[in-house]
Amino acid sequence: MLNAVGVIAEYNPFHNGHRYQLAEARRLSGADVTVVAMSGNYVQRGEPALFDKWIRAQAAVANGADLVVELPLNTAVQPADRFAQGGVQALAALQCQALAFGTEQPDLDYADLGRQIADLPAHPAGFVDYSQTYATQLNTFYQETLHVTLDDPNVILALGYASANAQLAQPLALIPVPRVAVAHDAVQTRQQFASASWLRDHPAAMADFVPAAAWPLYQTAQCSRWADFWPYLHYRLLTMSPVELREIYQMTEGLEYRFIQQNRQAASLTDLLKRVKTKRFTYSRLSRVSLYTLLALHTDAMTQVAVPLRILGFTSAGQRYLKQIRKASGDTLLTRVNAQSGADTAPYGLTVQADRVYTLVNGTEQNFGRAPIRREKG
Amino acid sequence: MLNAVGVIAEYNPFHNGHRYQLAEARRLSGADVTVVAMSGNYVQRGEPALFDKWIRAQAAVANGADLVVELPLNTAVQPADRFAQGGVQALAALQCQALAFGTEQPDLDYADLGRQIADLPAHPAGFVDYSQTYATQLNTFYQETLHVTLDDPNVILALGYASANAQLAQPLALIPVPRVAVAHDAVQTRQQFASASWLRDHPAAMADFVPAAAWPLYQTAQCSRWADFWPYLHYRLLTMSPVELREIYQMTEGLEYRFIQQNRQAASLTDLLKRVKTKRFTYSRLSRVSLYTLLALHTDAMTQVAVPLRILGFTSAGQRYLKQIRKASGDTLLTRVNAQSGADTAPYGLTVQADRVYTLVNGTEQNFGRAPIRREKG
Repeated sequence: MLNAVGVIAEYNPFHNGHRYQLAEARRLSGADVTVVAMSGNYVQRGEPALFDKWIRAQAAVANGADLVVELPLNTAVQPADRFAQGGVQALAALQCQALAFGTEQPDLDYADLGRQIADLPAHPAGFVDYSQTYATQLNTFYQETLHVTLDDPNVILALGYASANAQLAQPLALIPVPRVAVAHDAVQTRQQFASASWLRDHPAAMADFVPAAAWPLYQTAQCSRWADFWPYLHYRLLTMSPVELREIYQMTEGLEYRFIQQNRQAASLTDLLKRVKTKRFTYSRLSRVSLYTLLALHTDAMTQVAVPLRILGFTSAGQRYLKQIRKASGDTLLTRVNAQSGADTAPYGLTVQADRVYTLVNGTEQNFGRAPIRREKG
Repeated sequence: MLNAVGVIAEYNPFHNGHRYQLAEARRLSGADVTVVAMSGNYVQRGEPALFDKWIRAQAAVANGADLVVELPLNTAVQPADRFAQGGVQALAALQCQALAFGTEQPDLDYADLGRQIADLPAHPAGFVDYSQTYATQLNTFYQETLHVTLDDPNVILALGYASANAQLAQPLALIPVPRVAVAHDAVQTRQQFASASWLRDHPAAMADFVPAAAWPLYQTAQCSRWADFWPYLHYRLLTMSPVELREIYQMTEGLEYRFIQQNRQAASLTDLLKRVKTKRFTYSRLSRVSLYTLLALHTDAMTQVAVPLRILGFTSAGQRYLKQIRKASGDTLLTRVNAQSGADTAPYGLTVQADRVYTLVNGTEQNFGRAPIRREKG
């Protein structure tokens, strides 16, 4: 029986820090295989991924991941708590025994904190204060209740994993992987580590901070950025009524009027978000709502059960592990998309539709006829 | 009291033939002023106008039109019978005493034919034959019932005017203007007459076939063609459900499924229309349905009362005529668009929204801050 450690990731793009994290996850857990639940073509901050899911899965299986599956779209582009919950449930469905995650505070007792958070009331009364963002309020709440200081999004995400994990019938072992001392948006040249966001902003410097087995993939890959999709969102908002816009997920509290009005003068997505911004909403939230609008993601679709997990790539070890779990995980896994599994009404139809929009910029078919990436060594 | 002859036009673009027609309308009717009810930025065949409504109105007032008003969007982009009806009602609201129209068959008794058509049952039983286009069936019906041969769209349109006119409380005098012997899609260089569709396809040859007072306007004008809007329509269709698409005007009889399915493979609007085409639907119908989709024109908006008539331009004589009719036509006329008259819920809001999409390609604001064009001579 092979033993698996799971990681929840975006790899936007995959870099040296991710390679290090996978190796540490394997070493600290003692697992036989590493399983990655990775976002598809859209990521949690409400953005298109810089490189498509196939490029990113290929980089991962070439650098320490044995199995890469695609997180369902309605998990991948959610607020942190729902993203964490969907990711953890995916790894549980893949029968991982441990969950590894990067954190600046590896010494916290995540299992215990997770149980405490899971026991909190779902909607604390203080959350109705509209003058602060939800994230700020959550942060205050965490500090006052759990007595931990949360000044890094990775720790917030780690606590989200811990909380979701505590709610599983059989929780996974939690493996905090100490993050090398590089802030999320900074770069530390000595060790050739840089954050993914820094790399997205400095593509010319990418070669120094990504594995040798990933760089050739990136050199020929088509980049996709929000700016490429802005004309479509701008057009869409010009021709939507408030009533139609209200059907979009999380387009609430009058946001629909702000989006319609401000879009008429907006010159770019950045400009639009600045115009729509209030204290109540973070830029991430507004960026996600913009993405939901671009992709026409309605509330019912975004709150459906998140299935299936699409297999994007594997090594020989990953393939052996797939055989081991397939009997129990069969319905959850999707290997190939055909007319039936890719139909509009099929569970994977939401991703297929969103990927058609991605292909408008990327130029490459993302689903039909695409087979998982196989890496023979490993 | 000034006496007005009205013309219903698209001027896509305004050319020598239009100048000749306006002069003939004035001569044959003996009217003091010529009034034109012109399509705005979208035309009856379901296309964006090559030049915007301001360029076209300016060309018209420089070449024989005394007053140019904009046909409401839900008149301008309708099947021929509804287009004709809306145009005639507009000229009646502008208190024209005569209606002039170009025709290859000027000797028909249009007033009498109009009364006969107006008396026909609205939905003849034969129209349920789905193997032919509606136009073909209408043609057959006209031939069998009225004993006239209708092999030209101008004559069909003229009969539409005649029929709508017969239904007015006070019908206008009908002035058929013989069309110079140039087919709709042909060119006759000797007389410097060419059809508008030929000119759209041969912009380099335009100078020879348009008035000297129009050509300088065209040289600096931004052209807008369907191909420029195709990426938006393509994107829109990728992200609409059949249920949503069914709300689009005339998206009936399963067309919504054909559009969604065929759009996924389509490389251009022409390609899409070829893929969607059946015997039942003409290309004009399908092009209009595509335009309705691009502009998100729903059935309720397209079947509302067609108001207001926006004043686009006038000569001194036209201005005197406006003063004369303003008391009786006041509510119907719109001179300037402001926050109130251009609001989403105002009658002109539909045009404002559609023009925002036009501006995506054209680059020029079409409504707010735009004053009617004045030509002092004339």
